[in-house]
Amino acid sequence: MTDQTIRDELISAVRTIKDYPKEGILFRDITTLLGNARAFRRAVDALVQPWAGSKVDQIAGIEARGFILGGAVAHQLSAGFVPIRKKGKLPHETVRIAYSLEYGLDEMEMHKDAIQPGDRVILVDDLIATGGTAEAACKLLRSMGANIEAACFIVDLPDLGGRKKLEELSVPVRTLVEFPGH
Amino acid sequence: MTDQTIRDELISAVRTIKDYPKEGILFRDITTLLGNARAFRRAVDALVQPWAGSKVDQIAGIEARGFILGGAVAHQLSAGFVPIRKKGKLPHETVRIAYSLEYGLDEMEMHKDAIQPGDRVILVDDLIATGGTAEAACKLLRSMGANIEAACFIVDLPDLGGRKKLEELSVPVRTLVEFPGH
Repeated sequence: MTDQTIRDELISAVRTIKDYPKEGILFRDITTLLGNARAFRRAVDALVQPWAGSKVDQIAGIEARGFILGGAVAHQLSAGFVPIRKKGKLPHETVRIAYSLEYGLDEMEMHKDAIQPGDRVILVDDLIATGGTAEAACKLLRSMGANIEAACFIVDLPDLGGRKKLEELSVPVRTLVEFPGH
Repeated sequence: MTDQTIRDELISAVRTIKDYPKEGILFRDITTLLGNARAFRRAVDALVQPWAGSKVDQIAGIEARGFILGGAVAHQLSAGFVPIRKKGKLPHETVRIAYSLEYGLDEMEMHKDAIQPGDRVILVDDLIATGGTAEAACKLLRSMGANIEAACFIVDLPDLGGRKKLEELSVPVRTLVEFPGH
């Protein structure tokens, strides 16, 4: 099967919801892809294909949808999994970073002992839009000494600039399908 | 390797945090197990062993930690994944159920079209304590016509009664390790 065939299958497995969460937004809903056993498996296997057979220490997943894909990717690569959570959710000592949302600031955190300096880490989330969350996650991982192999997403919304933001941090970005427009 | 050896390995991979989230509670922190690549893989493989080679349609995971384990289990069984989320997080039409927390009520929901009647479903979460969340999730899944194969958890806190609550619903419960006491 060609890559283009896989891309077509994944694109048709994503559901588009008009005017969500507000008017004028086309929301790309990945739950239909996750619920399609074949598409979900293809997405995970295609996403991690560059690392097949090589050692990755940790998969870092961003709460909450990044946990689903991240758990699958960690299993596929036989790596550990590190949750990056909204503040106040992790029970042990954490490191924290603030980042901008559309309105105001928020914070995310991870456990202080979740990454060892030099660990090879892949960041995973379902979708990259403006990239603000992923950028903060990369900075947080690097502050702990992570060697970020790549940031991986199933869906890229290229017109929102997220990929460029991560590439400016010298983080290689891997995505499977693109939806142009906002 | 015997089952007991795997259990010992998993038990030692769970971190216990005293007095979290409040005094007198021994919190069983699964993030250290997830971050241990070998323990994480063993836990997933042991958990789904009864379904190896049989067809399971959907893995339902409870937000948020159940997403990590659920994503891995779905990948291992080549099944789809259905997120059961806190209210207001899912973009499409949902079904909803209220359930009791320690203080007051909360609601969880899933997409209306996430389960087809007769689907073989496994519910996954990291830990079962009082079982209130898992019980509500089972009722929600059954209201959509799911055929619940089992509810699977890495950790059981048997003295809190969750297993019994699910078994009273005739949901088979599978857990890997137990921590007696509260």
